[in-house]
Amino acid sequence: MSHSPVPRLQLALDHTRLDAALETAQRLHHQVDIVEAGTLLCLSTGIDAVRQLRQLLPGKTLVADFKVADAGATLAKLAFEAGANWMTVICSAPLATFASALEVARQHQGDIQIELFGHWTLEDARRWRELGLKQAIYHRGRDAQASGQQWSPQDLDAMKALSDLGFALSVTGGITPDELPQFRDIDVKAFIVGRALSESADGLATAADFHQAIANIWGH
Amino acid sequence: MSHSPVPRLQLALDHTRLDAALETAQRLHHQVDIVEAGTLLCLSTGIDAVRQLRQLLPGKTLVADFKVADAGATLAKLAFEAGANWMTVICSAPLATFASALEVARQHQGDIQIELFGHWTLEDARRWRELGLKQAIYHRGRDAQASGQQWSPQDLDAMKALSDLGFALSVTGGITPDELPQFRDIDVKAFIVGRALSESADGLATAADFHQAIANIWGH
Repeated sequence: MSHSPVPRLQLALDHTRLDAALETAQRLHHQVDIVEAGTLLCLSTGIDAVRQLRQLLPGKTLVADFKVADAGATLAKLAFEAGANWMTVICSAPLATFASALEVARQHQGDIQIELFGHWTLEDARRWRELGLKQAIYHRGRDAQASGQQWSPQDLDAMKALSDLGFALSVTGGITPDELPQFRDIDVKAFIVGRALSESADGLATAADFHQAIANIWGH
Repeated sequence: MSHSPVPRLQLALDHTRLDAALETAQRLHHQVDIVEAGTLLCLSTGIDAVRQLRQLLPGKTLVADFKVADAGATLAKLAFEAGANWMTVICSAPLATFASALEVARQHQGDIQIELFGHWTLEDARRWRELGLKQAIYHRGRDAQASGQQWSPQDLDAMKALSDLGFALSVTGGITPDELPQFRDIDVKAFIVGRALSESADGLATAADFHQAIANIWGH
């Protein structure tokens, strides 16, 4: 029996057009707990994406998936002033970038999520915790996925180690409801789902499947 | 005497407003060889920044500083279809992301630049070369800079090693004309300068100082 909160469901909007993203958010927001302005959406339409999603969904947790690598304070100001609650910073960013982003986040009662990609070590993770960071995103990348990479025992061990260090993890990368039992022992903050919700004709049914799987595993 | 081409000067536009970026590009483009839509500009105004810079400067080498971490093909399509010549990918991205971004770049006679941040190894660099990558950006990050980090012998050794592997390097991070002699033995493709050009009252004079320093060191 886990003592962690029940994982939430996060809708990632990775559209290139803002109107399509807003329409999807409008259609699905009742079925998800968190809405994310994905990197593709942000780079396509700019900060207006975050601003208009905040306007559409005043009370919803909203993520700016900027994957910041530098200029932490400047990009955090951009994200949080537009209405984001959380902003992502790429794990390879210098500690100074995390520190300056986190400072701005806190001024807005927001938070920073570490986007884990490529090389990182548990020593890095300890330093991130010392800075005060407490959220990380564990990613099976779209390209890694497309090239056939699966959730491996190494992935799950790494997630468990991060979990044990005190990180709440958001997990992403082509996850299906069937895969959720693998994450039973991990402090999962959210499962992030993009196209399976937004590009599916039965996105609402898919969201319901996720909630059912989460309830089955983590109870209520 | 270096056999490499003479380094070029790259103007990084890191504005939050597109009109200010375009005005700066209009004012300075004759004095620079390459123009970059910086990450802050791209995240603020979206892909319109690349599109409008291309329209304003039809013949200029144009960089989309997306710092791509995933979804290489999708983001490369976004950048190159809008008129970018080069797009940046963060060094911590999976090899599959580099491969898919490079494929799209080549379809547009474009190129991919590896943005070096945080952990990376010469083994990574060899793999990147095997994929066909030949440009990297060596970065003294804004936050690292602000916290007092200087160009170190380690930086210069790493740049030399990359240079020896066949990478043309673009160098960035608060560089001044006085610092250029340090890079004498490195295959520098471009020095990237942002606020020293765009926010200075005498940006044109600063650009001239860079060109003079480059001519003094690399000859003509």
